Amino acid sequence: MAELYIIRHGLAGEHGSYPNDDERPLTEEGHRRTHKIAKRLRELDLQFDLILTSPLTRARQTAEILQSRGLSDRLEASADLAPGGDFDHWLTWLDQWQHTEKNQLAIVGHEPNLSEWAERLVWGEPKHQLVLKKAGVIGLTLPETGSPVGRSCLFWLTPPKFLL
Amino acid sequence: MAELYIIRHGLAGEHGSYPNDDERPLTEEGHRRTHKIAKRLRELDLQFDLILTSPLTRARQTAEILQSRGLSDRLEASADLAPGGDFDHWLTWLDQWQHTEKNQLAIVGHEPNLSEWAERLVWGEPKHQLVLKKAGVIGLTLPETGSPVGRSCLFWLTPPKFLL
Repeated sequence: MAELYIIRHGLAGEHGSYPNDDERPLTEEGHRRTHKIAKRLRELDLQFDLILTSPLTRARQTAEILQSRGLSDRLEASADLAPGGDFDHWLTWLDQWQHTEKNQLAIVGHEPNLSEWAERLVWGEPKHQLVLKKAGVIGLTLPETGSPVGRSCLFWLTPPKFLL
Repeated sequence: MAELYIIRHGLAGEHGSYPNDDERPLTEEGHRRTHKIAKRLRELDLQFDLILTSPLTRARQTAEILQSRGLSDRLEASADLAPGGDFDHWLTWLDQWQHTEKNQLAIVGHEPNLSEWAERLVWGEPKHQLVLKKAGVIGLTLPETGSPVGRSCLFWLTPPKFLL
C-alpha cells in the first residue's frame, strides 16, 4: 500500500518581500527549523522513494533539505505542485508512478493547494478544515488500485511544533 | 478558541480475553507505552482543563496515566464515551462545558466512535477515512460559537509511534 507524505515548504519571507515571488527563499530561521524537522522525520524512520517538489524556490529548498538529511535519494520538480497547480494532471502522474511499484512518495508544495488536495484524496472534496502549517506534514495511505480521490486514509497530520 | 484532544485508550488485551469486556485492562506493554506517550504529550506542552473518559477500565487507566503525568488536574467519566456512546448527548455536555470558558479538553475513549466523532465535527459526517491507533491523538479547534459539527478544524492526528 502506497503512502503519500504531503509537506508544506518551510518558513519563507513575507509575501511581497521579494521581487519575484517564485524566487522567495526560506528565511534563516526557516532553514534552521526545516533542518530540525527533516532530522526528526529521519529519526521517525521515514524514507521516500521520491520527493516531488514545486519548482518555486522556497519549496525546492525545503525538498533539498529533506534530501540532505537522508530522506530520499531522488528529487524531481513538478509544475503541478506550484501554486494553483493542476490536481488532475498530478493524479495522472501519480497513477503512472504507482505502476512503478514504489510506495513511499513525498510531495512538497504550497497552501492552500496541499490541504485541499489532501481533503480531495480523503473525502472527495475540499472543505478547508485541515490546518497545514509551514513545514507541517500530512500522511495518507493510497488505495492499491483505482482512483485515490475520496478513497485515501489520513493517518498523520502534524504541525511542525510537535516535531521540534 | 477551544481545543479538543481526542485520545484512544492504550494497548489492552484482546477482545474476549477478559470475562467482562468493560473491565479489560491495559496490558503491561500498554501501560508502559501509554506512560511514554503521556510524558511526550507533556513535553509538547499540552495541558487540559479536564480529561473526560469512557468509564471502561482500559480508557480510565489511560486517562489516569495522562493525569499522573501532569496533563490535567481534573478527570471525569462519561457514559457518552463508552462504545456506542451518544454523540448528540455529549454535544449538549460540550456546549455547557464551553460556557465555563475552559478551552483545553481531552476525551479518552474507543474506536470506531472517536474517529467518527472527529469526522462529524470536522466534515459533518463520518466517512471512516481517519486512522486512529491505540494511544493515538487527534487535535481539533472548535468554533467559538454555534455547533461544532462540520465546523471544527483538524490540526493534529498522530499515531503513537510518532510520539515515542
